[in-house]
This record gives sequence, structure tokens and C-alpha cells, in this order.
Amino acid sequence: MSELFPMVPKIAFEGPLSDRDLAFKHYDPSAKAIGPVGGADGNATMKDALRFSMAFWHSMTGAGIDPFGSATMQRPWDGIADPMEVARVRMRALFELTEKLSIPFFCFHDRDIAPEGATLRESDRNLDTMVAFTKDLMKSSPTKLLWGTANLFSNPRYMHGAATSPEPKVFAYAAGQVKKALEVTKELGGQNYVFWGGREGYETLLNTDMKRELDNLARFLHLAVDYAKEIGFTGQFLIEPKPMEPTKHQYDSDAAACYAFLAEYGLLAHFKLNIETNHATLAGNTIQHELRFAREHGIMGSVDANQGDELLGWDTDQFPTNLYVCTLMMYEVLKNGGLHSGGLNFDAKVRRGSFKPEDLAIAHIAGMDSMARGCAAAARMLADGALERPLAARYAHWQSGIGATIASGKEDFRSLEAFALDITDFGLASGRQECLEAVVNRYL
Amino acid sequence: MSELFPMVPKIAFEGPLSDRDLAFKHYDPSAKAIGPVGGADGNATMKDALRFSMAFWHSMTGAGIDPFGSATMQRPWDGIADPMEVARVRMRALFELTEKLSIPFFCFHDRDIAPEGATLRESDRNLDTMVAFTKDLMKSSPTKLLWGTANLFSNPRYMHGAATSPEPKVFAYAAGQVKKALEVTKELGGQNYVFWGGREGYETLLNTDMKRELDNLARFLHLAVDYAKEIGFTGQFLIEPKPMEPTKHQYDSDAAACYAFLAEYGLLAHFKLNIETNHATLAGNTIQHELRFAREHGIMGSVDANQGDELLGWDTDQFPTNLYVCTLMMYEVLKNGGLHSGGLNFDAKVRRGSFKPEDLAIAHIAGMDSMARGCAAAARMLADGALERPLAARYAHWQSGIGATIASGKEDFRSLEAFALDITDFGLASGRQECLEAVVNRYL
Amino acid sequence: MSELFPMVPKIAFEGPLSDRDLAFKHYDPSAKAIGPVGGADGNATMKDALRFSMAFWHSMTGAGIDPFGSATMQRPWDGIADPMEVARVRMRALFELTEKLSIPFFCFHDRDIAPEGATLRESDRNLDTMVAFTKDLMKSSPTKLLWGTANLFSNPRYMHGAATSPEPKVFAYAAGQVKKALEVTKELGGQNYVFWGGREGYETLLNTDMKRELDNLARFLHLAVDYAKEIGFTGQFLIEPKPMEPTKHQYDSDAAACYAFLAEYGLLAHFKLNIETNHATLAGNTIQHELRFAREHGIMGSVDANQGDELLGWDTDQFPTNLYVCTLMMYEVLKNGGLHSGGLNFDAKVRRGSFKPEDLAIAHIAGMDSMARGCAAAARMLADGALERPLAARYAHWQSGIGATIASGKEDFRSLEAFALDITDFGLASGRQECLEAVVNRYL
Amino acid sequence: MSELFPMVPKIAFEGPLSDRDLAFKHYDPSAKAIGPVGGADGNATMKDALRFSMAFWHSMTGAGIDPFGSATMQRPWDGIADPMEVARVRMRALFELTEKLSIPFFCFHDRDIAPEGATLRESDRNLDTMVAFTKDLMKSSPTKLLWGTANLFSNPRYMHGAATSPEPKVFAYAAGQVKKALEVTKELGGQNYVFWGGREGYETLLNTDMKRELDNLARFLHLAVDYAKEIGFTGQFLIEPKPMEPTKHQYDSDAAACYAFLAEYGLLAHFKLNIETNHATLAGNTIQHELRFAREHGIMGSVDANQGDELLGWDTDQFPTNLYVCTLMMYEVLKNGGLHSGGLNFDAKVRRGSFKPEDLAIAHIAGMDSMARGCAAAARMLADGALERPLAARYAHWQSGIGATIASGKEDFRSLEAFALDITDFGLASGRQECLEAVVNRYL
Repeated sequence: MSELFPMVPKIAFEGPLSDRDLAFKHYDPSAKAIGPVGGADGNATMKDALRFSMAFWHSMTGAGIDPFGSATMQRPWDGIADPMEVARVRMRALFELTEKLSIPFFCFHDRDIAPEGATLRESDRNLDTMVAFTKDLMKSSPTKLLWGTANLFSNPRYMHGAATSPEPKVFAYAAGQVKKALEVTKELGGQNYVFWGGREGYETLLNTDMKRELDNLARFLHLAVDYAKEIGFTGQFLIEPKPMEPTKHQYDSDAAACYAFLAEYGLLAHFKLNIETNHATLAGNTIQHELRFAREHGIMGSVDANQGDELLGWDTDQFPTNLYVCTLMMYEVLKNGGLHSGGLNFDAKVRRGSFKPEDLAIAHIAGMDSMARGCAAAARMLADGALERPLAARYAHWQSGIGATIASGKEDFRSLEAFALDITDFGLASGRQECLEAVVNRYL
Repeated sequence: MSELFPMVPKIAFEGPLSDRDLAFKHYDPSAKAIGPVGGADGNATMKDALRFSMAFWHSMTGAGIDPFGSATMQRPWDGIADPMEVARVRMRALFELTEKLSIPFFCFHDRDIAPEGATLRESDRNLDTMVAFTKDLMKSSPTKLLWGTANLFSNPRYMHGAATSPEPKVFAYAAGQVKKALEVTKELGGQNYVFWGGREGYETLLNTDMKRELDNLARFLHLAVDYAKEIGFTGQFLIEPKPMEPTKHQYDSDAAACYAFLAEYGLLAHFKLNIETNHATLAGNTIQHELRFAREHGIMGSVDANQGDELLGWDTDQFPTNLYVCTLMMYEVLKNGGLHSGGLNFDAKVRRGSFKPEDLAIAHIAGMDSMARGCAAAARMLADGALERPLAARYAHWQSGIGATIASGKEDFRSLEAFALDITDFGLASGRQECLEAVVNRYL
Repeated sequence: MSELFPMVPKIAFEGPLSDRDLAFKHYDPSAKAIGPVGGADGNATMKDALRFSMAFWHSMTGAGIDPFGSATMQRPWDGIADPMEVARVRMRALFELTEKLSIPFFCFHDRDIAPEGATLRESDRNLDTMVAFTKDLMKSSPTKLLWGTANLFSNPRYMHGAATSPEPKVFAYAAGQVKKALEVTKELGGQNYVFWGGREGYETLLNTDMKRELDNLARFLHLAVDYAKEIGFTGQFLIEPKPMEPTKHQYDSDAAACYAFLAEYGLLAHFKLNIETNHATLAGNTIQHELRFAREHGIMGSVDANQGDELLGWDTDQFPTNLYVCTLMMYEVLKNGGLHSGGLNFDAKVRRGSFKPEDLAIAHIAGMDSMARGCAAAARMLADGALERPLAARYAHWQSGIGATIASGKEDFRSLEAFALDITDFGLASGRQECLEAVVNRYL
Repeated sequence: MSELFPMVPKIAFEGPLSDRDLAFKHYDPSAKAIGPVGGADGNATMKDALRFSMAFWHSMTGAGIDPFGSATMQRPWDGIADPMEVARVRMRALFELTEKLSIPFFCFHDRDIAPEGATLRESDRNLDTMVAFTKDLMKSSPTKLLWGTANLFSNPRYMHGAATSPEPKVFAYAAGQVKKALEVTKELGGQNYVFWGGREGYETLLNTDMKRELDNLARFLHLAVDYAKEIGFTGQFLIEPKPMEPTKHQYDSDAAACYAFLAEYGLLAHFKLNIETNHATLAGNTIQHELRFAREHGIMGSVDANQGDELLGWDTDQFPTNLYVCTLMMYEVLKNGGLHSGGLNFDAKVRRGSFKPEDLAIAHIAGMDSMARGCAAAARMLADGALERPLAARYAHWQSGIGATIASGKEDFRSLEAFALDITDFGLASGRQECLEAVVNRYL
């Protein structure tokens, strides 16, 4: 088969001094990974440890369209008329680029990889064709499927929601679509299955029965869990929080809202989160906050590694090049003992003006180098206890005395009042924020 | 006792055509309340139904200070040197103004009503003195206590948190302080007790053990529940969500985050929410969203009736004069069957430039008239089914056919797929948002 | 010719008690307009005074696409394959709906009304055909052209800017396109010509020569002014501020930035502003602020009457139904002595879920009624001096004494210091914000 | 005189490998500065080139107060009752710390350094005393005055504005206060004089005569210019943009708004800008944008080097530790040929929880090291042409052909149309944003 991106060679690691665009400066796929991300034995390679993933939608179907402009991207499938042939070329391109970039995983929505038909039956047929094609390509490729998902937001039938549509036929259709997507994800060896509820929310409360919609959303997810069990799909289910866009409000607005929902409806045992930087910031949270919340609540599942522009109010889905974002993201991942079945999926799109085919490779390289550099910085911080030691010191008083008796549940309001009545000096320590920020800078 | 606000007469209802600043145009305390807020028998007065409350802190201790400027307010206690005498004059002023304004309730923090001493013991003593003074005033006044709370944020000891402080002594002190505040709230007949966690959050995750802090916060609240039971305080416990300010991030960031926390720590049976408009918007939510969420999750407790400026990023705590805010707020309250033990507390401050004593009355009148007008609009919408009828129509398909079988749990992914495979027409209806917005306008 | 929107009758005024969706409650086209908007003689009708305009792009070409979803709208041209025939049907629909809705004006971009060709020459040919078709329709229609403009943002050639593109060929093409658009606007009797610089800005300063780009933008506008003079186009030139979206930063970010640019490049004599509510709020300004700034700087040109959602960070372009927005907008318009050659253009789109043809009429009715109601409220406020009298009182001290001598330029720092050295009482008055907010409520 | 900060030694440069909090890692005061910031001869030291300045208000009078909490800071003047003695100790502390930290400049407001009296006369007297005291200290200190300013925002008299107050007496008082502040700044050798209009704006347009207020503001600045000429003060006048906080809207909202104002009122010859990172982001702009705008419009005056939290909506005034902020800030400064009479003033406050005296030094060290590191990165980028070469390539087509004839004013709309009519290929290049972001990372 002919090369689709001939201008992109197999990308080599050349080290931090290289100034070539098409070379890795920090990501060395076969080098030993630093720190706890390397697994229990610590022998994993960077490629195995970082678990990078290419997003089919942005990189293969993304055309550079924005609300005010049409497609800009130059791609190998330009000019091909047959949608199934476009789909095949795109899938070949995905495998070509992931291999050239040493990206071990990819992710997709059902409708990314096969054109939608006039009915679900017809769409399923297209999907089956492409899944067979994909499976064939996977035989001779190292690239694996990180997660699959169903697109329950683009088609007009989902304008008022999918599982939360006021129209039961839409609920039924979405169920059929997810059933198929689960089967396909299993077929391709997907390690997770993701729900992003882009239309599961509302435009205005004036026309919305929120309670009923949440009930239906939970019902839908329970049915998915049931069906996965039935077919023996053992991948991890993930929910992806986002507060708004496209709708005015999405129910899965941030990690805490997802936890509330999962707890209320008895779904905590079955779901973890797929957390994205730009979704976090749209909700007013840092990525570190969302990952920390997920980690400490046992629901860190996977990461959509991108970044947004905090001065803009929409999802810009930029490649992660900010080293603070990358370092603090990886800090939480490392504290989580790595990503387990999750990965670092580049849910990121090249800028509309970066329309050349090579920009696609350059952008991934920029993101991978930044994440690798962030990972190394986080691992060194952890190895040095750069943040851990001051943290332990800060909370040390909980290990003895009144701290220990409170922590062990031996105190009540009466005993605590008696203890506190005459205290005048609380012996507080400085929070030392500026100092810790300088510490982080030392590791960049 | 001499009048403290002689420029403020007893405020009379003069009807919507009045243009006098010091008159009610819509709030007629003794008129029959419209709609379900009037209670089961529907005979409640507007005063009884709306349950307005004055906030001691803004109206009695608020001085017009902002981060860039010092006090502006002209108040009857200006020039009095003795803090206890200031406290007494303020308390008298509270009762004078609530009576003149036909506001049936007030709310306070412990430190609002009595000066802080050098120790908790000394603060308690001051508080006891002022509680006795207050109780005495209450004997001859119709004004009752809606809720009490403890100020766990102003004193430097709380700089790193109260229940979430890294220093156990601070936890102990806060426990002692809340113990006393609970006793005092009970003593004064308070119908609720509020926790607002202004310092229960973090400035930077670099120095924060979030898990431990959340555990401690939950432990603290359980101890409060235990102590309330011990002393027979039967008022409702409330948590007040706010996402940020003063800290970078507060744990109780919005209604969903509070639900997540309460669910995780087994506190749902004991707590409802005290929801504030400006806190909602700082979290990116409308007040209607927060109230809807709380209502449908059974945790609507009370309302801090104010409004913010959505183009500004801090809590402006303005009096609620926006009729959309007031109407949609009351719509949710009415759907909740009224406020029960909660109320509409004006957690609002006169602008720094509205420094005259009469501005305090004028601002409350503006807020009360707006809320009364919003309540009437909401009640008429409900009586007409203006929003309810289209809502029922929108979800009607869930009453029969596939909708009904899904809702009753009889369908699974297989049956739904079979149902959906060949659908081409989903029969979707318009969301009609613009139409419904015009409907709301008809009721303003 | 057959009716294209048979479900939309000629909309009649039925008064505020009507609850029919397809009826005017406040906009009575033939009634006498209230207040200064009625022109010098005060005899204008509401239709003449309010100068409503339909936006061709949103109402005729808008399909309900958003960044996550495809077209939803049901329109009479669905299923027509020939782009020129689609264009003709859309233009007929525009005239049908504006007449049925008593909307006296429309606005368009060149590419809205005729399909783009492979070259500028071919695009011009399509445009000529459609202009002739339009002119013919105008002969038998009351609907006139408020303004024309060129779409310099959708085509990929404009990805890096039009007048500000790094590529001079693009500048040249844009010049040719605007030349034609000016000719066409003149041909159709357009009363204004608008520049909205959707791509005149940058994605990142790392690749941007801002100074050169601003120079080129100014050069481009001067060339447009020259050419208008040459062909005798006497309509008003307008610039439309917007801070961001689609680009990270647009140079014409708000009214003040536009003024700075126009002043710097000697363009103030030739340009006024076309101000839009949602663009204002994206820039952190209220619509009233932007209109006030423009009015007091003599550059209020025209209004894009819509509204945004201040909790969302993108341009939602909703129909204006918020009565505060409408009233304060019209207050500034009335203070400006009306709109002159400008109008109230509904740069607003029906929500994606309001996909039925009748929603298009209902949304316009909602907007027109709200604007008419806002206009009436503003006119009554002005007639009563409801805001003007307190304003005059607030600044009264500038009419005499030290105020008058300062204002007449007779004081300097020495004389003012001497005057001020021993003042202790400044006699400040309250700002009375809450009172004035209640005043506005009285007029809603 | 005894040491006031004995826990802070003279801070030494120890190089990037040092992990001591109280040591410089990147700022080496006596080392040769890199790049154009070093002045024409390129021999300046880093200390001379970076022109760091300590802000008297944050570092000497800042107490850790926030809107919800009282003072936390531990300072050498705690417990001193006499305000003049407090002022003297603070001034001594300023000189002690600037010397220990090798900070060559300081900045102050009049009311920072001397307590306000009951009248302007009395305040002037206090100020005179402190100026004499300061002048005396300066004789034996290397620390110089970068700029002075008058506090026209804290006192209640300024609640409605200073130069823009509705009350002429306030205008007069402000004039007298600025007159004195100009004299004092001259007396102490200040190199600039700053106006920050914290109250020059409005809370609501309902009570505001914006035109009159802007006229008065301009009049005030002209009087200041006149008086400076009269007394021979030759320092640079600076205006400091900020969009909001404390008021709802400040007139000097961003660099473009300031330019519009200065242009309109004939003040461009006399004023440059004092630009602050956190003020930029509150206005929705990056610091690089504001500096770029100022640089390219010839009004870059000085820099308030801090950073904000873009997820928070108020001015957090944090020390600049983000290396992207620091690098891109310095990039613009270097392109400006350095700061000239301006400087890098740390308008930054230690976090409320960083209350120990040593935190004040640590925070400055963190900021200075970050700025020095950013300066070095920017200088190396410039030396390598890392951004300049791709920029030149991007705009190269303006040097010849149609680009050159457009640029030289030889083309008009007719000639450009003729040129463009048949173009099909525009030969656009990629914007390469991701690539350039990776380039910047190479220099961090």
C-alpha cells in the first residue's frame, strides 16, 4: 500500500537539543519510563507507560471547520467521492501515522470510522465493513484500541438529547447504536468504552424535565452495563465530564457532578471518568483538580490530554504544550500508580491554520514531547519528595495528640470545646505557595 | 428606646402605581399569598409565605469596605467606641428595621452579633450577653430567627481552613465555636443552621491533601449532627454552595458537588442546601439550575436571595431586582411546595455608594417588591399551566408505547435495537425556546 | 408564486393580552411610535421608527449546524439540488417573511445570497444574477436593504485573515470582493455597508506581525472609502466590534478598541459602529455600555439586536427577549435621537432545537415584541425624566461655584489645592443604584 | 539601626541547582544582562537591565486582608501604635529588603508611606515628614524611586470617583492630592508618575453621565501635565489599564481603551501605559497582547510584573512564577529595546496564607528568578531568531510583487479586483502554531 503521509517519516528521538520539527526531543518510545508510571516492576518503556492515543475524529475526520468557516485541511482523502473509500483511506492513515509517531493506541466514535446510513441497520452494515477492515490492519500493526464510543450528538435526531431525549424512539435508537458500539469495541480489543454526553443536558430549563432526563440517562447506562456483561465485554466504562457546549448545560458537568450522578443511581461500581483539560477549565476547574478529585474518589479512568485557552469560553482542544499543564497532569497520574487501562488520548485538533499534512505530525510531536517532559518532571519531583515532604510536614499534627484522637473518632464537640476554650496560639505554619511554585519551576 | 432609623417609617403597601421610594409596590405583607407557597390551605399571607429574612452581616455590620476602599456607610452606631454597645445598637436596629419593613426573619453569624474575644471562652461570654439581649428584644418583636451560623472564615486562625485546616487545634476550635453557635441558634428558636465553607477549600493543590481535608470536613459535620441530636436542636442543617472566593477553590462548589460530598460521607439524611444566586453564577450555573437540582434531589433548604453581575467574576451580593431571576427562583420554590423551614434571606448588601441609612430600607424594598412580583408571576404561570402544559406535551410519549415499556424497565439493548433498526422518522417536536421565553415575558 | 411559509400568516397586532404565538402583542407596525425615535416631527409609525431588519444569513441560510452537530432546520429549499435555485427560493422566502412580519429591512453578506464560484469572476457572475433577481422582487415589496457586507471569513483563503492576511493575494481578492459588494449594496439601495472582521485578528502572537496587519486593515478601509466615493455610494460605513471567535483575538474587539483604531488611522470621519449585544458581553461589556460609548463618541451607527447567555463563552446569537436588554438598548437609541440610517437587525438565530419553519416567525415575533416593549418603556422613562432628573441632580454642582469654574477651565492644580486644603465634609450624595433599579422595574 | 527582617539575609546568587529558598537561582544582579535589555552598549548588569521594583503597598502595608478575612501577616511593625512610627518602620523595612534582595527600585502611593490626616493639609504635613525621612534613607541606599502615585480610591470621598466624581469638591481635593504627589515624586527622584483610576468608572450607567466624567478625567490629566511642566518634573506619565474591580467598569479598561481616550483628548504626547498581567487577563487579554499593543503604538511605559489566576474573576496579584508569562512579557520588553524609564514592578502580594516575614523574601525571589529566567529565554530566542525568522518568512510576500505595490499605496480596488478575478490558488502557508509553541518550550 502506498504511503499516505510521505512527508512524515518515522519519527526518531533526537534529544532535547534537536531543533528539527519532525523529531522527538523528549519522548523516547523505547527508553525506560521514569517513575511509578512504569508499572510495578518499573521496567516499562516510555511508550508502554505513557499510553498515548490518537483521536480518530480530530486527526482523521477533522477538517478545520469552525462556526464561521469551512474546511481548510489538506488530507490524502481529499477528492475521493465514495464515503466508504474515504473511510478506508482514513483508517490506513491512522495506522500509518500512529506507527510513524510511535503512538500505541487510538480512539474512535462509531460514526468517525464508517459513514452513517439511512437507518441504524444500514449504519451498522457500514460499520461492520470498516471494523473488518480495521481488524485486518491491526493484525500487522502495533496500534491498539484504547477506547471506542458512539456518536450520540451529531445527527439531528439527537438535537434534544440521546438517552435524555423527550422522544422515546431516540432513546431506543441510541440504545441500538451503543449496543453495536460495545460489540465493535470488544471486537477490536478496546480496553475501555466512553460516554460523552454532548447532548445530555438542556438548552433551557423552561422546556426541560430534568429529573426524568437524569432517570433516563441512568437507566440507559445500567442497560449498557447489563449488555456488556452479557457479551463479556470487560473493558472499563468511562464518563467524560464537560459542563457546556454544545448545550447550555450538560448533566455530566465536572468530576464532582459525575460522582453525584453515579452515586445517586448506583453506578459507581461500573464507571470511572475520562477527564479532559479543556473540559475542566470550562467548568472553572484546573485539570489537576479534576484528576485529583477522580484519583481520590477512585474514579480516575483515562485522560483526554489537551489544553484550552482560559481566556476563551469554548473548547479549543489544543495540543498540550503547556509544561505546567503536562507536569501537574502527570503528577496526578503518577500518584494514581499510572493510567491502568486508560491512556493519554490526544483529544486535540491542529489549529485551523495548521492545515498542512505535516502539521498533524508536528502537533502530535509537540504534545508528546511536552507530556513526556511533564512526566519526567513529575517523576523527579516525586522521587525527590519535592512536594511530598512539605505536604507531610504540613499535616504532621494529625499523627499525634489531639490530631490523632480526632482522626480516630475519639473526640466530640464537648471534648473539643474543652480543649479549645483557652487557646490563644494556634501555631500555624505558612502555606508557602510561592515557594512551592518555585519548586515546580526547578523541575521544568 | 429611641428610634435608630428615624428617616425610615413603617413601610406601607401603596400598590404598583406608587413612585415613592419608601413604599411597597408589590409586597403587601398582609395580603393573601398567591399559589402553592401559601401552604396546604392556601390561606397564608404574603409575609408568611415569602419568609423574607434580613442578613445581619450585610445590613448591620457591613460598612461599605471593598478590597480597594474603606468604610462608607452612615450608621447609627458610628462613633460608639464600646464594641458591646455597638453590638446592642446594631441588634436594636435589626429589630427596628425588620419590623418597619415587615421582614419576619433574620439570620446571623456568631461574630456578627457579638465581638470576638481573645479566647473562645471570652467570645462565648460576649455571645451569651448578646443572646440574652436579643432574646429579650424578641419577646416584644414579631421578628424570628431563620438561621444561625458560625463565622469560620474571618479570623486569621482559619486562613488555611476551619474543619479542613492542616492544624488540628483549629479543627478543635471550630468545633467549639459551632457547638456554641448551635446552642445559641436553638436558644433563639432558629429554624435552620447553616454551614458556609468559605475557607474549606484550597489556594493551591501543591500544598493540599484534599482527601484528608474532605474526610475531616465530613467528620466535622457528623459531629455537628451528633451534638444537635444531643441537645435536641431539631432545625434543618444546611450547606451553602460557593465555588470560589475567598479561596481559589471551595469544596462545596455547587449543588452537585455538595450532593456528591453528602452522598459519599453518608450525610444526605441530615443536610439540605442554602442556595444563593450569585454563588450559582460564579459556578457557571443559573439560580434556577441550582434550585431545580436541589428540588429534584430533595435538598432544597433555603435561599439566599440576591443577584450578581454575570460580567463580573466576584460575589457582588446585590439586592435581587432582576425580575427574571426573581420569577424563575420563585417558580422553583413554588414547585417545591414552598420553602418549608427555609426562607428568602437577603444575603445582599447595599452598594458602597448607597451609603445613606435610608438606602438600606430602599434596597430591601426593591428586593422585596421584586421577589413578590416574581412570586406572583410564577404563581400565575403555574395556575395557567403556562409552562407545565407544554412540558407535559413534550414528554407525552413516555406515557405509552415504547416510552412506557422503557420507563417500566421492560426493555433492554437487544429489544431496543430491534425496535430501532429501521426507523427513519423520529417525529421530533420543536424545543420552542423562543416561544417559551415570550410566554414568561407575558407574566412579567 | 406559491407561498413558501404557508404556516405563517400575515402577523397581526392583537395586544398584550393575546396568547397566540403567531400574533404581535406589543409591536403594532402602523401605530404611532412613542418618543424621540419617531423623528423630529414625532409622527413616524413604530415600523418606521424601529427599523427592524431580518438577517439573511441566520434566517435564510442558517441550518442549525453547531460544532458538534449537523443541520436540523426544516426549510422550503430542502431537497433542491441547484444552488442557484436554492438562492432564489431563499430570496423569495426572505421577502415573504419580512412582509408577513412587517419587518421593513433586511441585511446580507454577498455569499449568503449567491453561491461562491471557483473564482471571484464566477462568484461575481452568480451575485449579479441574484442581485437582478432581488431587485426585481424589491419592486413589488416594501422590504428595503439596511446594509450589505462581504463574507471575508468563511472561505479557507481567509484562514489567516482577509485585509490582515500575511498573503497579499488574499488582500487583493478581499479588495475585489468588497468592491463588488459595495456596488451591489448601492445597486439595491443599501443604506449602510458593514465590516465585521471575523478573521482580522490572530490565533497566536507567536506568528503575528500585529502592526503590519493593523496598517493593512486601515489601508483596506481607506481604499473602500475611496471606492465608495468614486461610485457615489453614500451609505454609512460601519465597523462591527467583536473581541474573539472565530479567532483568539479580533482587532475590532469592542467600541473603545474600534475608536482607537479609527482615530489612529484617520478613519473617524468615515466610520460608525454596528453594535451587537452578544459581542458586547463577550468583551465583558454590557450592550448599554457599548451603545453609550458609541453615542457619546458620535459613532452609534446601527444595532445587531440579539442577546447572549452571559454564563456561556461563545456567541449564542439569541433573539432578544430579555426586557432589560431591550429597554436599556432602546434607552440609548432614543437618547441618540433614533437610529438614523441604522436599524435593529436581528442578528439572531433560532435555537438548533427550534427547527420548524414556524419557529422562525415565532422567534422574530418574540424579539420584535420585546424590542417594542423595551422601546415603549424607555420612551416613558424619558418622558417622565425617570432617570434624567436624578442624573441632573447628581451632577448639579458642576453648574455653579467651583464646579463651574473647573468646567470652564479657570482652575489649575494650585487653585484647586488651595480650595481643598481644609475641606472635611464633601457633601456626597448616595449613588442610589438600588432605587434606580426599582425605577426601571416600574417601567417594565 | 536594628535589622527588621533578621531571618532574611542578603540574598546571594547560587545558580539553578540550588534548592535553598533564600537564594537566587537565575537572577544574578551583577552578571551581564543578556540581549537588548542591556541597553545600547550591551554592558548593563542584570540588576540595571531588569529594573525590578518593590511595591510599597503590597509588601509594606499589605496585611493579608481579603473580603472575608482579617489581617494575617506577621510584620516588624505589629504592635506599634503610633501611625507615624509605623510609617517609619515600614520605610526602613523597604530599604532593608530591597537592598537584601538587590531590588533597585520601589514604588508607592502617597497614602502608603504616610498616614492620612483629617484634612489634605494635615495629610500633606504627614507626607512631608515621611518624604524627608525617606530622602534621608535614600542617601545611604542604592534603592531609587521608580514611580510615585496618589491613592485616589481608598478614602470614602472617592466612592463615586476622583477626577470623575459627580462632586466638584472631590475633583478639587484629588487635584490638590496629585499636585502634592507630583512634588513628592520629583523630590525623591521618581522616574515616572502613575495614574490608576480605580474609581474612575461607574457602578451602574443608570446614574452616570459618562461623557461628562470622561471630559473631567481628561481635564484632570491635562492639569497634571501643566503642573508637572511648571515644577520641572520630567518623569514619564503613565496610565494603568484595568477593566473592573473595584468598580463595575473602569474607563481605562485596557490598552486599546486607554489609547482611544488619550487620542480623543490630545494626551498621547504625554502619557504611556503601566501594564499589569492580571489587569490584562481580567480584560480578556494576554499580557503579551497588551504589551504588544503598547509597544507598537509607542506607549509601552512600565510593567506591573505579576500574574493572575485565569479561572478566577478578580485581581489576585500573584508573584509572577509562570515561565510562559515571564518569557513572553520579556520578549515584548526586549523588542521594545528595554524598559527605558520604566521597570518591572512587583505589583504582587504574598498569599494570605504566606504570612511569615520570610515569605515576603521568598516570593520576591521566586518572581525575580522567574523573570530573569524568562528574560534569558526571550533573549536567546531573539538571538537565534527563533520566532523572528519564521515571522519574516510568513510576511515575505509583502516585499515584492503585488504585496509591495499594495504596501506602497499604488493599488486601488479596481486594480486589485483585476489582479484577483481569476486566482484559484492563493499559495497559503501553514500558521504553524503548534510548531512555534514547541519552539518556545525549547527555550524554557
